[in-house]
Amino acid sequence: MSAIKYELIKESKDSGARLGKLYTPHGVIETPIFMPVGTQATVKAMTPEELKSIGAQIILSNTYHLHMRPGEEIIKKAGGLHKFMNWDKPILTDSGGFQVFSLSDLRNITEEGVTFKSHLDGSKHFISPEDAIRIENALGADIIMCFDECLPYPCEYDYAKNSLNRTIRWAERCKETHKNTENQALFGIIQGGMYRDLREESVKRMTELDFPGYSIGGLSIGEPKELMYEVLDYTMPIMPKDKPRYLMGVGSPDCLFEGVIRGIDMFDCVLPTRIARNGTVLTSKGKLVIKNAKYAEDFRPIDDECDCYACKNYSRAYIRHLFKAKEILAARLATIHNLRFLIHLMEQIREAIKDDRLLEFKDEFYSKYGYN
Amino acid sequence: MSAIKYELIKESKDSGARLGKLYTPHGVIETPIFMPVGTQATVKAMTPEELKSIGAQIILSNTYHLHMRPGEEIIKKAGGLHKFMNWDKPILTDSGGFQVFSLSDLRNITEEGVTFKSHLDGSKHFISPEDAIRIENALGADIIMCFDECLPYPCEYDYAKNSLNRTIRWAERCKETHKNTENQALFGIIQGGMYRDLREESVKRMTELDFPGYSIGGLSIGEPKELMYEVLDYTMPIMPKDKPRYLMGVGSPDCLFEGVIRGIDMFDCVLPTRIARNGTVLTSKGKLVIKNAKYAEDFRPIDDECDCYACKNYSRAYIRHLFKAKEILAARLATIHNLRFLIHLMEQIREAIKDDRLLEFKDEFYSKYGYN
Repeated sequence: MSAIKYELIKESKDSGARLGKLYTPHGVIETPIFMPVGTQATVKAMTPEELKSIGAQIILSNTYHLHMRPGEEIIKKAGGLHKFMNWDKPILTDSGGFQVFSLSDLRNITEEGVTFKSHLDGSKHFISPEDAIRIENALGADIIMCFDECLPYPCEYDYAKNSLNRTIRWAERCKETHKNTENQALFGIIQGGMYRDLREESVKRMTELDFPGYSIGGLSIGEPKELMYEVLDYTMPIMPKDKPRYLMGVGSPDCLFEGVIRGIDMFDCVLPTRIARNGTVLTSKGKLVIKNAKYAEDFRPIDDECDCYACKNYSRAYIRHLFKAKEILAARLATIHNLRFLIHLMEQIREAIKDDRLLEFKDEFYSKYGYN
Repeated sequence: MSAIKYELIKESKDSGARLGKLYTPHGVIETPIFMPVGTQATVKAMTPEELKSIGAQIILSNTYHLHMRPGEEIIKKAGGLHKFMNWDKPILTDSGGFQVFSLSDLRNITEEGVTFKSHLDGSKHFISPEDAIRIENALGADIIMCFDECLPYPCEYDYAKNSLNRTIRWAERCKETHKNTENQALFGIIQGGMYRDLREESVKRMTELDFPGYSIGGLSIGEPKELMYEVLDYTMPIMPKDKPRYLMGVGSPDCLFEGVIRGIDMFDCVLPTRIARNGTVLTSKGKLVIKNAKYAEDFRPIDDECDCYACKNYSRAYIRHLFKAKEILAARLATIHNLRFLIHLMEQIREAIKDDRLLEFKDEFYSKYGYN
């Protein structure tokens, strides 16, 4: 039996959008959903209680980072990632594949796996698909990912084709290694670069392996957004309807809309929390660099349409002061706000799907937010 | 009418310790009390709600820092410091005197006031006693301080004597300038270095000015602790009994005990929050450097006798991981814990005074905590 079950509640009449429920060992998730990222077993600047208070239903954590520090054995001894970080709702871990290819130095890929140097201390490491699953099993997230190669953009066709074949062989090995299927659902990852035939082949062969869910990988890695949408346009219609679909590493408001419209159920992105810590906040009227001098005497909230703790209790002037003074509370308030903004946006998107008005809602949103 | 009223509830039988209540425009404070420091209009890493949840009754904020950034005019426009920082309980501001002498460069003292260079950008500034009060009036704290000169240690007798006389003349000017007496209580500051006759003269002349409360300044500035206790030994018995007594900048557990025993009602110190951010936590069994490798697999709380959020929900292993990974939550959890530790210690000290067993409690505390 699979650890998760996807229930399709409603299909949109005017787009590929769908409303669903994802049942996991740590609770039910309403989809489509944005997942905050807790790279190092903490969503930066936030407590679990704060995450719950802004409506977070599931968080993501990064296998590569946790493997490097503190190491999965410590987390396993602590009773698993949920207990270690005091988060009792669902968790999703990636496989480390993306970080091995993006963060580490001097990686060397063979059929067996990847040798790479740590981004922390330069030490040499090797991860095979079997290792990735063993690490993810030790961490104990509700949803885990196959070890894959995330292609760069641009990428030659032949390389992409060979890589895709290897990623599928790796997925078979991941599935073979993963025994804890009742507590952890293993997702297959659709790759294939920006090539239609490769994406289609990836969908065909990955779905033959019958995973309980599928990720769309290798997007939002530097390609124009239109190209990402095009890949989704031809990939999503051939995806199985009874399984959740997760678009990895994507989380700007426009991409959330465009992904949902094409049938994506799950998103994650470090962007909202990262820009928050640098003093950029998302508002219903567009982005705002709160550190700017023009907010020094602006006693309005970040966003007067927002219901978050930061907006209910603090002014732009105060938050600007905190940023200028390099205070930790600056990062806290901006992070709470940006995450709440995206989670609230997804709540509104789910409502709009329910009411058959997603495309109108999208237009309304952009008429105020702009396309920045 | 004064903004505050001190009610002496009980005098200890076996020491100079006293139990009291301090009525302020923003609520009643039970004394003796430790006040967390919110230098830049935020107690570093904490929200006001978190401060309340650990039992903070009053916080301190620094006039020098707020004058430099964001400037008192912005805070006044925001509706005052309470509103600006979302803290509706009492606030105490220092006068900026200590920072002018300790943080800034190239200070030059005249009878009129102090010229100094900003620690932020090197720009030249001048603050007179009248300026300090005008700034503190704009900030709007419940309790404010006279502008004084904090002497260095060691300090020649003649310099200390001249400085003391000037500080008393400055106190007269502060009192003259301060009109908002119904909403803000102005404290006089006892100086005089480590010289008994000067301290005694300071008490005599400051109390003649009849302030609603008095601070003991110029201690814990590098002198041996025994010398500080000696100054308190001869200063405290001649202080008025019907006014609160605030020992500035002091907050280690041993100094809290020794101060309370000699009749101090109020303490503040940045130490517990500063060492927290560096990974040192206070426990009932002494200090602990949580970053150390020996805590990597220690799944016990920081302190099993502590009731704080960090101790109830997280292990030493997790908090160590957060520090190693340079996560903001590390500073948050350690700060919550250290502040709760001192606030809880003061709660226990008040209970012990009530039960006439302060000296026994002190011995019990040290038998576990040690004297580090």
